[in-house]
Amino acid sequence: MAAVNAPARKIKVGILGATGAVGQRFIQLLAGHPWFEVAALTASDRSVGKAYGEAAKWIIRGGIPAGIAGMHLVPTEPGAIDGEIRLLFSAIPGGTAGGVESELADAGFAVCSNASAHRMDEDVPLLIPDVNPEHTALIAGQKRKRLALGKKAGYIVTNPNCTSTHLVCALKPLHDAFGLRAVNVVTMQALSGAGYPGVASMDILDNVVPYIGGEEEKIEIEPRKLLGKVKADGIEYADLLVSAQANRVAVRNGHLEAVSVKLRDEASLEDVAEAFRSYRGEPQRLGLPTAPEPAIILHTEADRPQPRLDRLAGKGMATSVGRLRPDPLFDYKFIVLGHNTIRGAAGGALLNAELLYAQGLL
Amino acid sequence: MAAVNAPARKIKVGILGATGAVGQRFIQLLAGHPWFEVAALTASDRSVGKAYGEAAKWIIRGGIPAGIAGMHLVPTEPGAIDGEIRLLFSAIPGGTAGGVESELADAGFAVCSNASAHRMDEDVPLLIPDVNPEHTALIAGQKRKRLALGKKAGYIVTNPNCTSTHLVCALKPLHDAFGLRAVNVVTMQALSGAGYPGVASMDILDNVVPYIGGEEEKIEIEPRKLLGKVKADGIEYADLLVSAQANRVAVRNGHLEAVSVKLRDEASLEDVAEAFRSYRGEPQRLGLPTAPEPAIILHTEADRPQPRLDRLAGKGMATSVGRLRPDPLFDYKFIVLGHNTIRGAAGGALLNAELLYAQGLL
Amino acid sequence: MAAVNAPARKIKVGILGATGAVGQRFIQLLAGHPWFEVAALTASDRSVGKAYGEAAKWIIRGGIPAGIAGMHLVPTEPGAIDGEIRLLFSAIPGGTAGGVESELADAGFAVCSNASAHRMDEDVPLLIPDVNPEHTALIAGQKRKRLALGKKAGYIVTNPNCTSTHLVCALKPLHDAFGLRAVNVVTMQALSGAGYPGVASMDILDNVVPYIGGEEEKIEIEPRKLLGKVKADGIEYADLLVSAQANRVAVRNGHLEAVSVKLRDEASLEDVAEAFRSYRGEPQRLGLPTAPEPAIILHTEADRPQPRLDRLAGKGMATSVGRLRPDPLFDYKFIVLGHNTIRGAAGGALLNAELLYAQGLL
Amino acid sequence: MAAVNAPARKIKVGILGATGAVGQRFIQLLAGHPWFEVAALTASDRSVGKAYGEAAKWIIRGGIPAGIAGMHLVPTEPGAIDGEIRLLFSAIPGGTAGGVESELADAGFAVCSNASAHRMDEDVPLLIPDVNPEHTALIAGQKRKRLALGKKAGYIVTNPNCTSTHLVCALKPLHDAFGLRAVNVVTMQALSGAGYPGVASMDILDNVVPYIGGEEEKIEIEPRKLLGKVKADGIEYADLLVSAQANRVAVRNGHLEAVSVKLRDEASLEDVAEAFRSYRGEPQRLGLPTAPEPAIILHTEADRPQPRLDRLAGKGMATSVGRLRPDPLFDYKFIVLGHNTIRGAAGGALLNAELLYAQGLL
Repeated sequence: MAAVNAPARKIKVGILGATGAVGQRFIQLLAGHPWFEVAALTASDRSVGKAYGEAAKWIIRGGIPAGIAGMHLVPTEPGAIDGEIRLLFSAIPGGTAGGVESELADAGFAVCSNASAHRMDEDVPLLIPDVNPEHTALIAGQKRKRLALGKKAGYIVTNPNCTSTHLVCALKPLHDAFGLRAVNVVTMQALSGAGYPGVASMDILDNVVPYIGGEEEKIEIEPRKLLGKVKADGIEYADLLVSAQANRVAVRNGHLEAVSVKLRDEASLEDVAEAFRSYRGEPQRLGLPTAPEPAIILHTEADRPQPRLDRLAGKGMATSVGRLRPDPLFDYKFIVLGHNTIRGAAGGALLNAELLYAQGLL
Repeated sequence: MAAVNAPARKIKVGILGATGAVGQRFIQLLAGHPWFEVAALTASDRSVGKAYGEAAKWIIRGGIPAGIAGMHLVPTEPGAIDGEIRLLFSAIPGGTAGGVESELADAGFAVCSNASAHRMDEDVPLLIPDVNPEHTALIAGQKRKRLALGKKAGYIVTNPNCTSTHLVCALKPLHDAFGLRAVNVVTMQALSGAGYPGVASMDILDNVVPYIGGEEEKIEIEPRKLLGKVKADGIEYADLLVSAQANRVAVRNGHLEAVSVKLRDEASLEDVAEAFRSYRGEPQRLGLPTAPEPAIILHTEADRPQPRLDRLAGKGMATSVGRLRPDPLFDYKFIVLGHNTIRGAAGGALLNAELLYAQGLL
Repeated sequence: MAAVNAPARKIKVGILGATGAVGQRFIQLLAGHPWFEVAALTASDRSVGKAYGEAAKWIIRGGIPAGIAGMHLVPTEPGAIDGEIRLLFSAIPGGTAGGVESELADAGFAVCSNASAHRMDEDVPLLIPDVNPEHTALIAGQKRKRLALGKKAGYIVTNPNCTSTHLVCALKPLHDAFGLRAVNVVTMQALSGAGYPGVASMDILDNVVPYIGGEEEKIEIEPRKLLGKVKADGIEYADLLVSAQANRVAVRNGHLEAVSVKLRDEASLEDVAEAFRSYRGEPQRLGLPTAPEPAIILHTEADRPQPRLDRLAGKGMATSVGRLRPDPLFDYKFIVLGHNTIRGAAGGALLNAELLYAQGLL
Repeated sequence: MAAVNAPARKIKVGILGATGAVGQRFIQLLAGHPWFEVAALTASDRSVGKAYGEAAKWIIRGGIPAGIAGMHLVPTEPGAIDGEIRLLFSAIPGGTAGGVESELADAGFAVCSNASAHRMDEDVPLLIPDVNPEHTALIAGQKRKRLALGKKAGYIVTNPNCTSTHLVCALKPLHDAFGLRAVNVVTMQALSGAGYPGVASMDILDNVVPYIGGEEEKIEIEPRKLLGKVKADGIEYADLLVSAQANRVAVRNGHLEAVSVKLRDEASLEDVAEAFRSYRGEPQRLGLPTAPEPAIILHTEADRPQPRLDRLAGKGMATSVGRLRPDPLFDYKFIVLGHNTIRGAAGGALLNAELLYAQGLL
């Protein structure tokens, strides 16, 4: 398939919850984007009306991109958002995202959300373009329902939890080639995953915290939807057991996951390695601007991937795999690493939006 | 059983490889010990003849215990060690320990070794007094062999790898009560486990290293010997599969382990919790001086145990367990934490020596 | 002077703001105290009525001391505090401490405060028993004023900022012996100094923050009051210039200070070293229970003191000095280290209370 | 002055000691350089003959630049280095650099050295192109001496210690405008300054080490040569007193310096700020490829510069200054930050080579 053409004019987009850690990543990743341009930034009441540069405590190296610092923050409401904007990226924190995103979809916006609120909704795609691009088929149903209720035909698309994202990116080639029966994963997750200010330094210096509220539940269910099949009445979840143990470590960025897999079909070590190496997903086929090439990097060194050395592989959009070896309990075990606030959050939502455009859904 | 009586006069002991990180822990733990007193310190050629205080770069908080700094280092050879000494603690680094320890046992010494060289030898106990105190039955065979070869009747006893130690301390009550079929463990191990200077700061700040050379192999085999049965011709290994993934994290002390277990018998969550809570091992029954009380601490808080808060439980000799919950793949999963250079190294060897004394083997 | 006799019955004390980081240190240090016993714990409205063990997120290793977890929190008001209590330790955060402490002093309590609100008040002692025990002379004036206004004869005594405390403990012997003309200090301060949750981990991992709000101002003025003389109308500040630059580093506990001093009298390097070594203050002479012995530890190793190795010297109450050497701009330069939440906060206030008792002021 | 023209053909260069931490930075910075191309890599005997990719443990993010991994390491000797090479960058460790560099200069090479061995030699420029580009006048004397001894007309140029470099970059505009009388500096230096493996993680986690061997001596003398004047018989050192206290902190890259200065002429705070802001050095005037623009960045935020946020300013070649304010002892105090292994080491040597080319000395 040929690469997708860029739009004749850049598509204006808005960022919901633009001042937080994920909102900042959206701004950084959209700077100079070939298809999209930032035209609105929303924030909570406390910051509405202020210039972005005043309201946000910018924490990403390199400073606020040109043109953004002077933009004024607007409320996260349909009426406050410029009429030319079709697409919204949501970086709204967990608790409040659900209602606001529904309201914006009802008003006709396409919402690419990083929040967990709607991920498990029957008619909302939980989307990784590398893994399940066909799940966008659910969007038609959302539009129909909204129109039937007298709303506008907007819709919501979500990206998974940061840990689920890289886990499933790594599992996808194995599931396609050999079928997955069971997955065990123990995570060592970065501080940025908790947002800002997030984890207190007194809690994590010289320490590991073996608990992240709500995280294991997400990691145990999201892969089943992501690897599921589109049926007439929604997604049929993959028949797959996942067990997760989540830990917080003193690393700035990059979630590391120790994974063990039980396969349905027999596969040699070389078969599995080749499945990782040869994997090419829809984003690569479509030439989406933010797609990494390759999507999966298989390391053969004894001690890689490591967060500090490998989290920025593919500009933070690639998934690194390493230490692939047979397992005495499962079939194989390996290490997965990926950037949690790029591919695992804002970058994942952005790639989703690129897929929507390529599929003619924007 | 009543607590063991202290010896009429303290037993003189020597420390082999006394200047390193584990050697220092032996010195610290033996300061003021009710049964043993340090009478010889050995070192490599480079340091022989020097005063301990000059030769060692002391890295433990609190400084060198009284009386030690002025002791002169002697070679690690039978002839150089005071004749009154019966018991030697070995903190010799991996590569060179094997031959030296054999030579010293041949010369009549009881050697309690922290090195891995002899752990898997058929006639050498791999010993945790809480777990397999009856394995000291192997010692008689060692003595016979040595006498048959015209050597003296010394012997070697080993303690397991630091990670295996706490893992098996936690597994023991479950194995006794329900039988273990399979164990999966992913570790987050402290820096002190690599000795000194050990891990370079440039390698671990803002990072996790998902590899520790030789570690996984030890964790996968040692529990099978530790939980094995004494037979006429040695230890029959436990019929148990273990899979390990070992990671190094930026924590000074305290190995954290994410464990999943498959049991042979059915057990409710409360059964498992009660097995941990009610466990009482031989060191507690005998009242060994270094035995923690209790040996296993079961946490019920959502986010415990943590290395910084819990590694010194039971003065670094206890094993902390937490986050006990059902597992969708195995039966149960939980977190294990323990101090790696106290119970996991020098303290483990010391407890072994205390058991040997209590059993009349010194 | 002979050591002070313990009171016939322990003096009942209360802790204001008992759930925070400094409040917890008060509780820890008062556990088993020979003179004082905790009889009241106060907290903000949110926690009043709850058991301490429920309301406080305990962050100090070792757990909540016996008897405390079940105590119920009362409001920080005169009427709510048990009538048998004479002495209150204040761990109330900066902004709100001033008014509350005055109110409690007006109600007759002796308040030993760690807050900065009243430190520079003309009639309030800014007190380090090692440095200026005679400044308690100000108390009489406070009592007189209160009585004149129809209040009760309570009073407030404060301890300095954590950084000032160790700085002035180290400067005192030099000021006594040679007179101080000028002091330059650059600090590297621990995370616990910012309270809990305090510094975000994202802000300090792999970083130093060269700014601590309000800190430099305190360090530049407090030493002048501490080293000042009692006059009829208050304290005459010492004629001494101090310049401070304050930095936050990724250290849990222990403030490190790089100090340079200009003296009034000539002094050889050995004179200065001897002044540190031979220093003995009022707490040592009186044998106060919390006084370290010695108060100042002079290191001669090239690379000491270090926070991790030396912060607990004298159970966190001693001040460590090292790297004493001539300075090309000033006369001498050296390193000062001390524990910021023990001697620098709760322990300092406790030592003040011990001095008050010894002086018959309780 | 117009920007310098690039050479018609790239100049072939060699890197001495190419496998270490500084050698790696040279390789990284020379990848794609417009004037220079790497044509030889030397190493110690242990690595000679091996491919670079095998011999070096690459520790810089992003991997070994194309074309380098396959290059074979040659001995650090005149005869082993390709005859077309005129310029050598030396990353040889301290102890051995002196003799080797002299030998190579005697054989006709221009040596840009990061080692300290020849820095204080009378006829060797200690060079920062921003600060003292006219010091290259010493080179003629070196050539004459070598020719007189029957050697070839090579020469040695050195760059200062990493801490001195950024300190003097910041001091230069003040010295030019107002004259410097005295400078006090307390440093908080990054781990990479100690090379690899360098500082043990056990020594620095949750710690600061208030000592770096030999560092303070360099910081106290190098600025005087750098700010000195070229005279007939060498450099007349600047009449300036410097006092330094050097500390190691848990930061990967970026040295932070707390600086106080006493000026000869009166200057308002705004005068000093303007001196920093308006500074433009020879590298900017010449448009040297590696020169940052601007060379000095003056921050006005309360808490900047910080290592993590600002060390890569100007691609690691700029010096960041902040917290400029009056000082009660000196005249002004401020914070200086710069990247220690880019501008402070390999990047500094590279900029020196660019200056030499621009001055027609290559």
